[in-house]
Amino acid sequence: MSLQFDVRARDGRARRATLQTSHGIVETPTFMPVGTAASVKGLTPRELREAGTQIVLANTYHLWLRPGSEVIAAAGGLHRFMAWDGPILTDSGGFQVFSLRERRTLDDDGVTFASHLDGSRHRFTPESVVAFEEALGVDIAMALDVCVRLPASAGELERAVALTTRWARRSLEARTRDATALVGIEQGGLDRALRERSARDLVALGFDGYAIGGLSVGETRDEMEAATRFCAELLPEERPRYVMGVGTVRDVLFAVECGIDMFDCVYPTRCGRNGRAMTRDGEFHIRNAAFTRDLSPIDRDCPCAVCTTFTRAYLAHLFRSNEMLGPRLLSYHNVHLLNALMGEARSAIEGGDWARFYRSTIARASRDAITPA
Amino acid sequence: MSLQFDVRARDGRARRATLQTSHGIVETPTFMPVGTAASVKGLTPRELREAGTQIVLANTYHLWLRPGSEVIAAAGGLHRFMAWDGPILTDSGGFQVFSLRERRTLDDDGVTFASHLDGSRHRFTPESVVAFEEALGVDIAMALDVCVRLPASAGELERAVALTTRWARRSLEARTRDATALVGIEQGGLDRALRERSARDLVALGFDGYAIGGLSVGETRDEMEAATRFCAELLPEERPRYVMGVGTVRDVLFAVECGIDMFDCVYPTRCGRNGRAMTRDGEFHIRNAAFTRDLSPIDRDCPCAVCTTFTRAYLAHLFRSNEMLGPRLLSYHNVHLLNALMGEARSAIEGGDWARFYRSTIARASRDAITPA
Repeated sequence: MSLQFDVRARDGRARRATLQTSHGIVETPTFMPVGTAASVKGLTPRELREAGTQIVLANTYHLWLRPGSEVIAAAGGLHRFMAWDGPILTDSGGFQVFSLRERRTLDDDGVTFASHLDGSRHRFTPESVVAFEEALGVDIAMALDVCVRLPASAGELERAVALTTRWARRSLEARTRDATALVGIEQGGLDRALRERSARDLVALGFDGYAIGGLSVGETRDEMEAATRFCAELLPEERPRYVMGVGTVRDVLFAVECGIDMFDCVYPTRCGRNGRAMTRDGEFHIRNAAFTRDLSPIDRDCPCAVCTTFTRAYLAHLFRSNEMLGPRLLSYHNVHLLNALMGEARSAIEGGDWARFYRSTIARASRDAITPA
Repeated sequence: MSLQFDVRARDGRARRATLQTSHGIVETPTFMPVGTAASVKGLTPRELREAGTQIVLANTYHLWLRPGSEVIAAAGGLHRFMAWDGPILTDSGGFQVFSLRERRTLDDDGVTFASHLDGSRHRFTPESVVAFEEALGVDIAMALDVCVRLPASAGELERAVALTTRWARRSLEARTRDATALVGIEQGGLDRALRERSARDLVALGFDGYAIGGLSVGETRDEMEAATRFCAELLPEERPRYVMGVGTVRDVLFAVECGIDMFDCVYPTRCGRNGRAMTRDGEFHIRNAAFTRDLSPIDRDCPCAVCTTFTRAYLAHLFRSNEMLGPRLLSYHNVHLLNALMGEARSAIEGGDWARFYRSTIARASRDAITPA
């Protein structure tokens, strides 16, 4: 196994573990900020570290199209290219390619698609995706999966699961690099029998870790939560579990409650760019007129460099003036907040205090608005 | 005098001095990055410091309109509002207001104008501008001047000079705050007799420092350089001299050569946002295809955090991917470069090596393109 994974504490289904990658140890549960195009939007690697980031995600689909693996390999790999020396996980590109719908053709061997940038034609196969991820030198690669938008027919879901299993086997066989771990992605939509089959198939193949894919693709929140809970239990205790595309305070903590170890989402940085502040007391929009004279920090309980330096009034001014410093500062804070909550979650699990921490944190963060100071 | 100014070395007309402000000492000659709306675009105060910035400029016109002096005063002044604890200079707003042309009406008492944001009507008088700058608590305030676009008629220039002198006297009389120094702005276009009269008038009134205004407003480079050289000599040796709106390597060093101590410009940050890199070997555009595989830093001789961390290839990728990190990193480097050159200029003046330094630096920076590594 390329990923050493040691569960150090459990509390209910929640668990606290360490994940040893080729670029260092990740304490889990952990949130992974998304660096789509080899950049977590607006933030430097130094800031990501300061904000408590342990591991970043990059997108195979986007980097494949631009700048391509040749440029990144020539730079000495993705770590050196983007100057992030911590662990990197690349997604499989499956989610993006299958989102293209009209611009892609699936066959049993792979998927052909037209670039959203220039219409040029490209082909993902399990082998080409693993080769790409290994060329980037990432620590954790995801196997190419077949991702289906919900609702979907039983036949469509069944074919997706069957293909995902076959592609998973081919991905494992295509591996050539020990330093890049490989994680399989479970599919099956909301169909429990298919989810069970997909999990059983992947576990039988033996991956370094397992991801729950095909969620946040059109289902309701209740459906997503039920599926997360159900799917997490299908995955082995001794391997890391990863839910893709989860990044609100509520969703992240729910995943931890289900025994998930890793999650990623553009949510905190996208919110940051759009002026939406995440706090321990719920979210608010900094452009709201109420904040133009508010001299308190974004989050009163946040020790981050933004909250200890700048006021809501100043950030409100930056956003109203379309100053790029605003999106940057708010993205930093939002990422810091999720990372800090993960640290608190780890402590709570270690201390046997998870249930209380989970309830109180969710209750506090579920407030809908914040009264200006 | 609110500004203690001590010339420590001279070499030709160039001089190296210290300027004591209410928020610390500025070593001159110095470049002042522009924080139009209380933010040097894309950079934090910490980064400005790291990049060697000693003093920043903010725009009276823009801050008057948004967020206004009440919000900034309530925050404890502009330093605390923008979290920059070093010296701040505010321009007079004259240049911006007179640029509005169709949207402003000049009378002997002041100028009435319509906001470019919402069309609301506002009025600048010498008194209202000084009051605004003092409310912001800045270290150096500029007196409201009448700025004329060139070419202009002799009558227009003469009226501008006469009004500027009368407004300068009223500005001095309007002062109420010792911690805010007041600098007068000389006008007169390219007319030497008017420039002489303007300088004589202002010096007789006795300001903390003197600025050369009304340049970079339509004249040729030769005209601007001749006027800068001529005007600098009209200003007293014992007070700081400031040329407004100058920010290329060539223009900044020429100003030092003329005995100027301070300059400001959006040039390095605007270039940074647009992908134009400033280096000791000339400027280049990072989007040029030649740089997509160039693993050298922006400037081989630059010790800044960007050049020691990231490659041209990575910055080229960021700009092509429209990642906001690109403009941010290049702005940082460009500001660092100008600040570093100012430090080298100060050392050269101290060491009696200014003429050689000036010639060689200009020659090197005047190259038009850079060959990728």
